[in-house]
Amino acid sequence: MSTHKIAVIAGDGIGNEVMPEGLRVVEAAARRFNIDLQFTTMAWANCDYYLEHGQMMPSDWFGQLKDFDAIYFGAVGWPDKVPDHISLWGSLLKFRREFDEYVNLRPVRLMPGVPCPLANKKPGDIDFYVVRENTEGEYSSVGGRMFEGTERETVLQESVFTRKGVDRILKYAFELAQSRPKKHLTSATKSNGIAISMPFWDERVEAMGPGFPDVHWDKYHIDILAARFVLSPERFDVVVASNLFGDILSDLGPACTGTIAIAPSANINPERTFPSVFEPVHGSAPDIYGQNIANPIGMIWSGAMMLDFLGNGDARYTAAHDAIVRAIEQVLEHGPRTPDMGGGASTTEVGMAVAELL
Amino acid sequence: MSTHKIAVIAGDGIGNEVMPEGLRVVEAAARRFNIDLQFTTMAWANCDYYLEHGQMMPSDWFGQLKDFDAIYFGAVGWPDKVPDHISLWGSLLKFRREFDEYVNLRPVRLMPGVPCPLANKKPGDIDFYVVRENTEGEYSSVGGRMFEGTERETVLQESVFTRKGVDRILKYAFELAQSRPKKHLTSATKSNGIAISMPFWDERVEAMGPGFPDVHWDKYHIDILAARFVLSPERFDVVVASNLFGDILSDLGPACTGTIAIAPSANINPERTFPSVFEPVHGSAPDIYGQNIANPIGMIWSGAMMLDFLGNGDARYTAAHDAIVRAIEQVLEHGPRTPDMGGGASTTEVGMAVAELL
Ligand SMILES: CC(C)[C@H](C(=O)O)[C@@H](O)C(=O)O
Ligand SMILES: CC(C)[C@H](C(=O)O)[C@@H](O)C(=O)O
Repeated sequence: MSTHKIAVIAGDGIGNEVMPEGLRVVEAAARRFNIDLQFTTMAWANCDYYLEHGQMMPSDWFGQLKDFDAIYFGAVGWPDKVPDHISLWGSLLKFRREFDEYVNLRPVRLMPGVPCPLANKKPGDIDFYVVRENTEGEYSSVGGRMFEGTERETVLQESVFTRKGVDRILKYAFELAQSRPKKHLTSATKSNGIAISMPFWDERVEAMGPGFPDVHWDKYHIDILAARFVLSPERFDVVVASNLFGDILSDLGPACTGTIAIAPSANINPERTFPSVFEPVHGSAPDIYGQNIANPIGMIWSGAMMLDFLGNGDARYTAAHDAIVRAIEQVLEHGPRTPDMGGGASTTEVGMAVAELL
Repeated sequence: MSTHKIAVIAGDGIGNEVMPEGLRVVEAAARRFNIDLQFTTMAWANCDYYLEHGQMMPSDWFGQLKDFDAIYFGAVGWPDKVPDHISLWGSLLKFRREFDEYVNLRPVRLMPGVPCPLANKKPGDIDFYVVRENTEGEYSSVGGRMFEGTERETVLQESVFTRKGVDRILKYAFELAQSRPKKHLTSATKSNGIAISMPFWDERVEAMGPGFPDVHWDKYHIDILAARFVLSPERFDVVVASNLFGDILSDLGPACTGTIAIAPSANINPERTFPSVFEPVHGSAPDIYGQNIANPIGMIWSGAMMLDFLGNGDARYTAAHDAIVRAIEQVLEHGPRTPDMGGGASTTEVGMAVAELL
C-alpha cells in the first residue's frame, strides 16, 4: 500500500474553519477504506504571512510542494489586509499555473435537502460538469498603463490563448463527455464580441469535434449560456470554457443548485507531474470568519474528489469518494445544518456528522 | 412641435418579424400623445446585404445615419451565412463605437404574468438596471496570432480601458443610482484574476464614490455577482459593469426574470452628438425565423425607451413610455401570448394587442 503525501494549506478566513472538518472526514474515509495518507500542514499562503514577510509564500514554495501528490487547500484572500490580486496571484493562481493544473473540474449537482432557487427542480434534474481552462486566457498580468494619472490614461490588458492550452482542455472535456451517458459537450464562447481570441477558441473546438464522433457538441455565447443555466440547466452535461468564462459559470452553476457553499473543485494536472489542488469553490468570507458557522461541505466534497484523484481508477478510492458523497447527501437531507442552510449547527457539528456516517 | 427622425434597421432573422410590431406600437403611442416621428427604413445592416456586397453596410453609412435622432434596431446575425464576429463588428458594434453610444442601459424587471424561473418571486421583487460600458474594454479586435497553424500557435487579445471611458460610464451609473429611491450601486469587477484592467476599474470606482456621498456602493467579483443574481436579485438597484461583464449580466438578469425575449435596451450617446440605438436584448434567432412566432415585447419595450429618450424629460414622452409599458404589462398578464410564453398567438397578434391598448 503506497502512502499519499498531501500538503494542507488552510489559507485565510473560513479556510481555517472548514479545513479541520475536511481533514476529519477525509481521514475517516481513509481509515475505513484502508488508504494511507500523510498530511503536512503549511503555515503560509495567507494574508497574515504576507503582512509579516511581504510575500504570500516562502521563496522556495515550489520546491517545498512539488513532490506532494496533492494539495488540500482552503481559501485565500482578505481584501482589508492585502488586495485580492496580490494575495491570489501570490498563491492559488501560482499553483494552478506553475504546477500546470490546467483542468479546473467543477461538478454542478442539485443535492437532496438543498432548497433550489430555481422553481420546480428536484435532485437529479441538474447534474453536469464545468471544465474550466485553468492556466491561461483572460487571467493574465500581462499589460500595462500609459499616461498614468492623466486624462489620457489608457490601460491595456492582454489575454493569452495558445493552441496547446486550448487543445488540451478541449481534449479533456471531450473525453469526459465521451465517458458519460449523455455524451454532450457545450462550449462557451463570445466570438461575436471578442474578436481575436474567441474565434480561435471556436476554431479549435471545430477541429477537435470530428475526433469524437459519438460526442454531440454545441456552442453558446457566454451571455446566453449564463441565461440558459437559469432557464434550462437540465440540458447540460459537460460545459467547457476558458479561464474567465469557466470561473463565472462555475459559480453560477452552483448558485442555480442552491448554494456555492457546498460546491467542490479540483485543479488537476492530469499528467501527475506536479501536485493537483483540491479546494472548495467558495472564498475566505472574512465577514463570517471567527464564528464557526461556515459550511464545511464544499471543503469535504473537495476532499472526496482528492481521494478519487489519488486512486486513479482504483476501486477502493472510488468507494471512499462515493461514501463521502453519500454521507454529505445524508447530512444535507437530515441535518445538522449550518446557518446558511437554515440550520443552527456549527461548522464542527456538520463535519462531525459527516465523519460519523463513515 | 419638432419632428424626430428615426432610422429603422430590422437586420436579420426575427428582427424582421418583431420590427413591424415595434413600429405599430410606437406609432400608436406617438399618435395618442401627439408626438411627431418620421421613420426612414434602411435595407442594409444584415447578412444578406453582406453576401451581396461583401460588407454589412454601404461605405457611407456614417453619413447616412449621423443626423438621425435615433436608430430603431432589430437584431443582426446569421452564423450560417456570415460569422458572427463579422456581421456584428460590421454593424451594431460599429454604431455603438462610432456614434459613441457609451451607455448600454438595460432594465431588469420581473413583470406580471411572466413565469419566473426563480422560486417564490413576485412582480416588483426584481427591479434594477444594468449599466454597461458600451465602447471599449474586452470587446476588441486588437491583437493577433503568432506561429499560426503550428503547435506553437499563440493568440493575443487586447482589452483596452481608458480613464475617460471608465469614468463617464461610472458617472452615468452613479447619477442614475442617485436618482432612485434606494440609491445603491454595485460595481462588477474581477480584480483578483484579471490583474491589470480590473484593479484600474476598481480604482476609478473608489475615486468616483466620494463625489456621490448619498449613494451607497459596493463591488463584487463577476463570478459571485452572477451567483447573486440568482440567489438574491432583490438586493440590486443599479449595477455598473464593463462591456463584457455588462453583456453577461444583462442576459442573466432578464433570464432571472423569466425570459430575455421581452428585455429591452438602449445604446445611449448621452450628449446627443450622434443617434442612439434602441434594440431588444435578444438576437436574430434564425432557428425560429419565418414562423411569425417571435415575441415582439422586447422590441416594443425598446421603442418605449426610445420615446422616453427623445423626450429628454418632456412629460408627454414620459407618459407615452409609461403607457406602452402598462400596455405590455396588460398583455403579459392577460394574453395574447407567443409560444415562448406558453401561448399560441403570433408575433402580429401580440403587437396588435399592445397597440390596441393605446
Ligand atoms: C450580438 C452581440 C455582439 C451583442 C453583444 O455582445 O454586445 C449582444 O449580445 C448584446 O448584448 O447586445
Ligand atoms: C479567488 C479567485 C482568483 C478564483 C478565480 O477566479 O479563479 C476563484 O474565484 C475561483 O473560482 O477559484
